[in-house]
Formats: sequence, structure tokens, C-alpha cells
Amino acid sequence: MSDQDLRVGLIGAGKMGADHARRIHERISNARLVAVGDPDGERAAQAAAGTGARAEQDPFEVIGASDVDALVIASPGAVHEPLLLAAIERGIPVLCEKPLTPDSKSSLRVVEAEEARGKHLVQVGFMRRFDPEYVELKQLLGTGDLGRALLLHCAHRNAETPPGFTSQMMIYDSVVHEFDTTRWLLDQEISAVSVRWPHSSGAAPEGLLDPQVVTIETTGGVLVDVEIFVNCGFGYQVRCEAVGERGTALIGASRGPLVHQSARWGGAVPQDFRDRFGAAFDQEFQRWAHAARRGSTDPAAADAWDGYAAAAACEAGVQAQATGQRTEVELADRPDFYS
Amino acid sequence: MSDQDLRVGLIGAGKMGADHARRIHERISNARLVAVGDPDGERAAQAAAGTGARAEQDPFEVIGASDVDALVIASPGAVHEPLLLAAIERGIPVLCEKPLTPDSKSSLRVVEAEEARGKHLVQVGFMRRFDPEYVELKQLLGTGDLGRALLLHCAHRNAETPPGFTSQMMIYDSVVHEFDTTRWLLDQEISAVSVRWPHSSGAAPEGLLDPQVVTIETTGGVLVDVEIFVNCGFGYQVRCEAVGERGTALIGASRGPLVHQSARWGGAVPQDFRDRFGAAFDQEFQRWAHAARRGSTDPAAADAWDGYAAAAACEAGVQAQATGQRTEVELADRPDFYS
Amino acid sequence: MSDQDLRVGLIGAGKMGADHARRIHERISNARLVAVGDPDGERAAQAAAGTGARAEQDPFEVIGASDVDALVIASPGAVHEPLLLAAIERGIPVLCEKPLTPDSKSSLRVVEAEEARGKHLVQVGFMRRFDPEYVELKQLLGTGDLGRALLLHCAHRNAETPPGFTSQMMIYDSVVHEFDTTRWLLDQEISAVSVRWPHSSGAAPEGLLDPQVVTIETTGGVLVDVEIFVNCGFGYQVRCEAVGERGTALIGASRGPLVHQSARWGGAVPQDFRDRFGAAFDQEFQRWAHAARRGSTDPAAADAWDGYAAAAACEAGVQAQATGQRTEVELADRPDFYS
Amino acid sequence: MSDQDLRVGLIGAGKMGADHARRIHERISNARLVAVGDPDGERAAQAAAGTGARAEQDPFEVIGASDVDALVIASPGAVHEPLLLAAIERGIPVLCEKPLTPDSKSSLRVVEAEEARGKHLVQVGFMRRFDPEYVELKQLLGTGDLGRALLLHCAHRNAETPPGFTSQMMIYDSVVHEFDTTRWLLDQEISAVSVRWPHSSGAAPEGLLDPQVVTIETTGGVLVDVEIFVNCGFGYQVRCEAVGERGTALIGASRGPLVHQSARWGGAVPQDFRDRFGAAFDQEFQRWAHAARRGSTDPAAADAWDGYAAAAACEAGVQAQATGQRTEVELADRPDFYS
Repeated sequence: MSDQDLRVGLIGAGKMGADHARRIHERISNARLVAVGDPDGERAAQAAAGTGARAEQDPFEVIGASDVDALVIASPGAVHEPLLLAAIERGIPVLCEKPLTPDSKSSLRVVEAEEARGKHLVQVGFMRRFDPEYVELKQLLGTGDLGRALLLHCAHRNAETPPGFTSQMMIYDSVVHEFDTTRWLLDQEISAVSVRWPHSSGAAPEGLLDPQVVTIETTGGVLVDVEIFVNCGFGYQVRCEAVGERGTALIGASRGPLVHQSARWGGAVPQDFRDRFGAAFDQEFQRWAHAARRGSTDPAAADAWDGYAAAAACEAGVQAQATGQRTEVELADRPDFYS
Repeated sequence: MSDQDLRVGLIGAGKMGADHARRIHERISNARLVAVGDPDGERAAQAAAGTGARAEQDPFEVIGASDVDALVIASPGAVHEPLLLAAIERGIPVLCEKPLTPDSKSSLRVVEAEEARGKHLVQVGFMRRFDPEYVELKQLLGTGDLGRALLLHCAHRNAETPPGFTSQMMIYDSVVHEFDTTRWLLDQEISAVSVRWPHSSGAAPEGLLDPQVVTIETTGGVLVDVEIFVNCGFGYQVRCEAVGERGTALIGASRGPLVHQSARWGGAVPQDFRDRFGAAFDQEFQRWAHAARRGSTDPAAADAWDGYAAAAACEAGVQAQATGQRTEVELADRPDFYS
Repeated sequence: MSDQDLRVGLIGAGKMGADHARRIHERISNARLVAVGDPDGERAAQAAAGTGARAEQDPFEVIGASDVDALVIASPGAVHEPLLLAAIERGIPVLCEKPLTPDSKSSLRVVEAEEARGKHLVQVGFMRRFDPEYVELKQLLGTGDLGRALLLHCAHRNAETPPGFTSQMMIYDSVVHEFDTTRWLLDQEISAVSVRWPHSSGAAPEGLLDPQVVTIETTGGVLVDVEIFVNCGFGYQVRCEAVGERGTALIGASRGPLVHQSARWGGAVPQDFRDRFGAAFDQEFQRWAHAARRGSTDPAAADAWDGYAAAAACEAGVQAQATGQRTEVELADRPDFYS
Repeated sequence: MSDQDLRVGLIGAGKMGADHARRIHERISNARLVAVGDPDGERAAQAAAGTGARAEQDPFEVIGASDVDALVIASPGAVHEPLLLAAIERGIPVLCEKPLTPDSKSSLRVVEAEEARGKHLVQVGFMRRFDPEYVELKQLLGTGDLGRALLLHCAHRNAETPPGFTSQMMIYDSVVHEFDTTRWLLDQEISAVSVRWPHSSGAAPEGLLDPQVVTIETTGGVLVDVEIFVNCGFGYQVRCEAVGERGTALIGASRGPLVHQSARWGGAVPQDFRDRFGAAFDQEFQRWAHAARRGSTDPAAADAWDGYAAAAACEAGVQAQATGQRTEVELADRPDFYS
């Protein structure tokens, strides 16, 4: 297959799926979108328009199609499991947007299915692993120049939330990224999660506790604090400072042209995660396409085990929110297959 | 007295006291050092040398001297109480290095003595209140532009500790500043303190848990986290980020000439709190001297009540360290005298 | 052609050409490398290896091949003219690395040939036009928020020069980028060039005047100064500050993780233009591929006229170096075809 | 005199003089204001009010008064010469605001008078020599870490000009600081000056060419460019980048709290030179007072020769403005007295 383009099927034609359709069509080398599946056929057709791909209403038609070499899943997390299991059964590589599945039990079933299939096929869309700054931070920690990591200080801020956003979503949709980056940066599992909060912002919708501070403990004794603030008002911002025995390293500083005007110095804040992480998504997809053409996954990416571990941490996080207590994370034994 | 210099007596001729002797002599307008008291007479003489002041072994000689208009106390905290009470009795203004006294009970006695005397005489040396960046941050919070304050993220790092430094000292000598700045920036009392820590740095002395993360809750529902890391290796650094409903403000960023050299961009980190806060100390002393010449204290400074409240927070912090539990701060009722 | 990949022929398999071969193969969507031409056949074969492209020794074989839809020229500037003229004659889109040609007379012949052909085919590789920061700066100037542009302050620094680097190359290889960005940012032509220099760095090779300061005047009355320093020692750095009537905007600040360690704050400086402008090259090629598939050029890119104008400015710059005099730039009338 | 306060006479009670009156009274240790002289007696009285000083209409009364140990001159430059000569004759230390005198001939007479008196008495108020960042930059250049200095890039911007501001004042009032810092940072004399300008800002008053770019050449072969822009609109900004053989160092970056709000990151720009250089003025005066109490001048400060050299550079600058030509600076031989 190496001289041919990877023929990609996409499932889910919402905002994220439509973005990925354009990404694959316009910016990913050696990959070609051939089918878009969404129960909302009109939406599928819109996402497919101009890409040369066909639209399908039944996602399983896409998974089973003989001209589909690999799959991108961008549908809601609640329907991921059967899609993943079908793709694993067919033996085709899958790039699945996070979450892998909405809970750790179903995620573990995916892990087990993949292990049983004996082939690394599933990749989870934790795109920060492809952000140049995060990559530099991981490399820096890997050199040992800063000594052993002791603390991470994280901030994750969104300008505002859409209607219906809940406290649980702050964990499942937002802090899940910090769960993954913590595990990835440190190469340690998460052992416990606590959540606290100040009085809520007047800008937060009725009933939403916003901001919150999530404290993560790892198996290696690192302590991580995460400010999650989803109605901060000023824009989208993700920051991480690693504190090691001999020094610190901070990523996520504001950037762009430095302007002096109207008695102020400074610049513009990105308003959307796509502004901040657009290049990371591109890199993630391009590397995935290269790996998938060889029938495998990108070792730099999150795999099914990572998806499972993130789901387990989310569960602990939501329980910690509900009880106000420090909550331990229970993980299955990690199969050798994922080591 | 307004056309005369303020005649200052200094008690305590250790490192800090000697610094203050030079400060008063060389940089403070309208003030003159007349006596230095230290049980170690030789040390007193050294600090006094070249300033025109006389040296005394008995600090109470200094307090009682007729040519002493005002007092600076820079001796160890354990001996502050009787010195303060004597000065209050004599009715002379005192600038007392922190802590006011080592525990809240004795601090409360000072508060009560001052209240009984009916005159504001005691000022505590929380010099950050005079640091230009902290002052700007407080002003900014005061404008309301950022909305109500919700969170503070603080980091307080020292290059290394002297021999004998203990976990309790991390609270009493270091985090005490964050207790004071929290109260001062927010105009709220501290209601509870918790402490957690990661595995300790290999650079920390045997037996010292370093770094630690102290979480402070306030009566106004603000949540404050403080990284205290006293063997960070690279220098002295104090940072504070306030998160409000509509925006954030960060102070303590590294500064100085931006150098590009040897494949690196950046600059030098101060190695000592005197580098970072030297101008704040000068400002604190100068304003104190002006107020003391008028027989009063500087309203911008910390008063005896602030010293008491900081002592109470320190006690809660040390208990939280020892028990691993969230510990509430119990405060006496605040006398009208201090409102 | 819209559903087919663009089939690209590459001429020149030196360092830059080999880079572009990998770029097209690995990162550019909807494009495929089919032939690499270089008189050094071995080099051509190396660059083609693993891309599925064939190697040719005669570049004109590549230009004439029926399976070549579009051309990338990365050979030395001295041989560009006949290659460009052949491609124009065949009517295929060309992305030509700068310079268009080494002198303004030959560049003008390319302009005239393209105009005669009546079709926009030629694009010049001034990649800064695709750098996100430069793009933001141009947009900012376009909003009018800063008022009319008055001054540009530029710095262009390389760690060191390869053997044989001359003062003229500082103009033709380095400052040529500032000539182009000046014209592009301001939408004005260059009217005159002056060059001055301090005593040279001890790190500059014998006979090279390094650094130099080039002053550019534009037809709109903007004054531009460019520090060109090609043996600055510490890395690769490109900076541009625009000064308008109401404010300034600076791009090119150092970035990457902010590290505190060993008594220093700061980060790493890129050592190579490929680190700094890698994403710009990718963007340039991807957009070119999209345009070329439609048989045209990217309107955001530099065209043949831009290549000619840059060549004319370089000639003035080299003359200004040689004479020490302010030298005016003489341009032909701009054909309507390029307006 | 060492145990007594320095008794200071101040001449000139305009904006700057009134500032200095408050500075001496409130912030300078070991100095006391005793007399303020200004032909406008009411203004003198206002500046003296609350300081304990008397007001005089005749400045020579101040210079001659037996209780005046030292003099500060803050009157217009045009009247400095006779005041300086009288102070030199009386043998008292003088801190003279820049310019020393308005032209090099009269400045040279002051130099000769001081030399004839045989005692260092005159200090010129180039306060940047006491700015912490400039001091750090000079120290850094002194270490040799950056190699020999090759270039300085300077920017000097004011929000707006008062009515009646002329192009000559841009040299005499503004660029004069860059003339002095160039000489001081590099320990070299200025050999030539050139001036160019773009089209002027629409915000500049009728008839004022603003901004301008001044190029300074030094006897050591360093090339300095200075953007002087006195109606930049956004605030007061002074920046200097030194380029050495092995690296660069930049001072004057914008600072203060980093705020994220309303889709912007950044902070406030100082609006006035007193905000930016207030601490430098204080330091200058404090060090002068210490030196003057010992009957001498501060070796870190600018002396009469520096004042003369700055005047000569200003004359060349104004001539370069008028003629559009590079203009050489002619200096008298430097007396050994000033080496």
C-alpha cells in the first residue's frame, strides 16, 4: 500500500468531524477522504462536499467498505465503543477523537478487544502530544537537566461555555487533556484526584461551579494542580509549568505580535482551541496517516490504554467533585501488549 | 518634630539588622540611626560603625533612651514580645520585622496592649506591600476591571536553605508572606489552610519535605495555592497570579536585560530576596520614617492585627503539615481599633 | 485535474532541493513528486529515493515530461532563467526558490515572457509571506489601527557563514528577504538603498564586513533599517518591528519553553532558518499545490514581478556597499498584468 | 561635615525643579533643602513650601548663601553658564540638570573653569546612568561576555509633544540622552552624526519632522541608530539593544503586571519619563548627596566634560538635520583632569 494514498473513512460530521474532513482533504499528505458517515445524512453530505468523498448515513457502512483503509471517529463519545470494536474486528487503523469511550469499563473492553486482535490499531486524539511546545517540554524533562519532576502547575481556560455545560463536562471534556498530558509527560499513572473550588464566577451559568482546581497525584509521587476555568471571558489559554529538582519549564505563554498602542503593550489571545492547537491536529493526522499506511499506529500518539487510563481518571475526578473527597484511581493491570 | 530627623533605635544586629542599619543611614531621608542594641555587643558595634550611632548590649536601654524617637526591631522573633510591649508603653513607633511574635497568643497580647494604649504604634515588616508590582496588582484588583477575585496562584522559591531549616520554617519564614499578601490583596481573612507535597527533591536536606503546596481558603471564598520550594536551586523567585471573573494578572515575571548568547535567550535570576525586594524595603522604611515623625504608622503597612492574623495562619499551616488535614484558622474578634 | 494529485517535478537536489523533496512527499496534500532533475545524477537519485519519483540528469527532461504538472526549482540562481522560460513556454506552474534570477535584466525577461504567455505561472519562494507572525503583522498593518507605517526596524542574524561567503551574498541571500517583506508588508516599491557598517566582528571571516546596516527607502516614504549579521554566533534570528503613526508591532521575539535553571531564565534559540520557517515553507508549498492543481498561482505568494523588484533592489544594495553611497533603484514600468 | 546633613540650594522652580524639591525633602537621606531660587518668586515659594527651605528671587543669593553646601540647577539651559561659574568659584558641588549649557563653546568654558579651580564640582543630570537596567547593560558589556560592542539599536518615544516643540529640541532634549548613554556605555567619543526621516506622522504638529532616525558613529567604530519619535501616541518608551561579537542584550522591554482580559494579553505603558526613570533620579540624587557631603562628585555620574561632549554632539546633530549630511563632531582635547 505504500505508494498509494491512505483511503480514509470519517464517522461523525459535527463541528469537529467537518473540521477533520477539511483537514484530511486539504492538508494531509498521502491520505484521501473517501467516505463520511453520519446518521444526519445532510450533515454528512455537507462535510463530504468538495472532498471527493461519498456520504453515508450508516457509520457501519463506512467501517465495512472495501475502499476504506483507515477510520477517523469524530462522533459523540457515547457511540464510540461499537464503532471501535467493528474497526478492530476488520483490522483497520482508527484515529478516535477523545474520549475513547465515556467510561472506563467500556474503554477496557476496547483495550481487551485490541489486545485479543493482537495488533495496534487504535489511536486516541489527544492532540497536545503533537503540540511543538508540549513536545519540547517532554524532551526537556527527558534530558534530566531539570532533575526529577516534582510538580506540574496547569491552567486550562475557555472564554465561555455553550448552553448545557456541566461540572462533569469540565472533567470529561477539559481536564481529560491534563490527565493525558500528566501521564504522557511523566510516564506515570494517575493514582488519585481531588477537586476544590472558590466561590463561582458571576459569569458562570447558574449551577456551574466555575472555576475549579483539580489536584492530581501520580504513582511517581508528582503533584499536579489544574485550574479549570471555562468562562474566563478573555479567550482560550492552556499553560503548563513543570517544576523539577533543579529548575522549571513553562509552556503556553501568550504569543503573537507584540503591539504598543493606546497606552498598552501586548497582543491578542486566541479565542478557540483550534487557533491554539491547529498545527498539533495537523501534525497528529499527518503522522497517523503515515503510520496507518504501514498498517500501524503512531508510537507518539495515545493508544487505547491511554484512552482507558484517562477514562478512569475522569471517573475519579467526577466522584471527587461529587463527594468533595480525594478519590483514588483504580486501574486494571496494564497488559504487556501496551508496555 | 517635623523639622527634625527621626532618631531611630535599632534592636538586633544580625544580617537583617545590619542591613537595616545601613539602609537607615544611607538611604532613608529624615531619619538618623542613634543606637543599635544587641546582646552580642561586638555585633552591635559593627552594625553601628560609621553610622554615628552608639552600640548597646541591653535592648531595653535603647527603647528607654530619651534620644530615641522610634524603634526598628530586627532581633529573633522569640524575643519580640517584651520589646514591643516596652515600646508601646513608652509610646514610640515601632517597625518590627516579621513575625510580630512567634505565636498568635503572644501576638494577641501585643494587639491588646496597643489597643489599650489607644495609639497606632506598631508596624510589621511585610515589605511586599511596598513592592511596585504587588502595589500595581492590588490597585488593579481594586479597580474591579478583572471582576471579583476567585483564585491566586503563588510560587515562592529559594535557591537553597541554610543548615537546620525545617518544614515549620517553610511556613513561618516563607509562606507567612503569602498569608499576608493574600489578606492584603483581597481584604479578607484566612479561614483554613491545607498542605500537600510531592516526593521531595533530592536536593532537599534529609528530613525536609521540599517542595510543598499550601492551599489557603479565605472568608470571601477565594482559593489560593502556594508552591513553596526552598531548595529550587536556580535562585529566588516570587510570583503571584490573580484570577478574577473577567481576567487574570500575573506579577513576578523574570526581568532584567534580555540576552541572546551561546544558543540561549534569557537573563539572570536574582539569588536573594534582597535583590528582589530591596526597593520595597527602602520604600517601607522611608514611608515609616515619614509617618513616625508625625508619631503614627503608615496606613499602607501591616499593623499589629495583621501580624496577629499572620501568626494564626502560620499555626494552622504548621498543624496542617503535621496532620495532613485541612485546618481552620481561629481568630479573635477584630477590635474596632484596627478597622 | 481537481480530483487528481498534482504531479510535481523538482529541479535541483542540493540541500534545499532534498528538503523540498521530503516536504512534497511527506507533508503536502494532493501533490506527488514524480521526477527529480539534477546534473549530479547521484544527488538526484538520493533526493528521489523513497518518494516514488524518478531521477533525471537533464532538468529539461523534467520540464518536458508529460507526467509533470508543475515544477519546483531549487537549483542555483544562475541557471534559473532558461528553466523558467521553458516552464513558461510549456505553460506549467512553477515554484522557484529565490532568487528568481541573479540579476534584474534576466528577471525582467522572465516577467516579459510570462506576460507574453498571458498566464500567471511563476511563484517565487519568499516563504516569509507564509509565516504566521508575518501574516499577522501584515493583517495588523492592513487594519489601519496603527495608522500609516512610518518605519520598519529589522534584524536578520545567522549563527555563522559557510566558507566563501561574501558581502554581496549578505545582500543577495539574506537582505533579499527584507527587500521582499518590505515591499509586501507596505505594498510599496523600494526607491533607494544605503549600506553602512561598524568595525567588523572578530568572528567574521577575513574580508567579510559583518555586521552591516542596510537602510531602505520606499516610494511611500517609509524608512527601513536592516541589521544583517551573519556570524552573530548565537543562532538564527529574524525580527521586524513596524512603527506606525499610532503604535508599533514587533514580530520575531524568542519563544519556546521558558526555563529557569542554573541562575538563568530563558530558552533555546533556533540554530537554522529551517527551524524558524519550517511551517512557513510547508504552508507555502501546500497553498502552491492547491493553486497549481487549478493551473494558477497563489495570490498570497510573490510573483515574477516581485522576483524582478527584489533583484533590482539587490543590485542597488550591492552597488551601495561598493560605493558607500545611497543608491536609487531603477524599475521598469509595472505591467498591468501584475497589478 | 560628615555627620551633618548636606544643605542644598535649588535653582529653578519649574516642573523639574519642583519635582527635585520634593525629592530632596522626602526621599534623599542626609540632605536638606535650605533655599529655592527662581526669578518667579511665587513659583519659588510654592516649590519651597513644606520643605523648610526659604524662597529667593535672585539665584545668586542662593549660590552665595553661607548655609548652602551644594547646589542643584534645574533652571532653563540658557542661564546655566553664569550659575555654574559662580558655584565653581565658590567651590561648592553642583548637580546641573542637562544640558550643561546650550552650546559646546559655553560648555567648554565651564570645563575650563572647573579645571582651573582644580576640583571636581560639576555633575550633569544624565539620570539613565543610574537606571538599574542601563547599569546592568553597562556591567554586561564590561564583562566581555558579548565580545566587543558593534552596534546599538535605540528607540526613544514620547506620547506627544507640548506646543512649540521643534526638530532641534528632538536633538537637544531627547537624543542628547542617547548621545550620553552611547559615550558612557561604550567609553568612546562620538565622531559623526547623520539624520534621516520617513514621511512624518499625521499626529505630528505642523512643521515637525517626526519620527527621525539619528545615526551615531563612535571613535571605536560602533554604529548606533536612534529612532526618536516624540508623538508616538501610546506612551513613553526607551529601549536599547547592544549587539556584540558574540551576543546581544536588550533593555527597556515593557513590564508591569501581565494581564489577560478582553481578548488581549499585556500591560500598561508608562506615560511619562518620571514613571520610567523615577528610581534613577532618586538614585542619582542620593549618590550625589553622599559625594557632595565629602565635597566631591559621584564618579558614576556625568561630569562637565560629558556635558561638553553631549553639547558638541547635539550641535552636529542639529547641523545634520539642517543639511541632510553626515556631520563630524569636533571636540577639544580632553584635559587630563577629566581622564
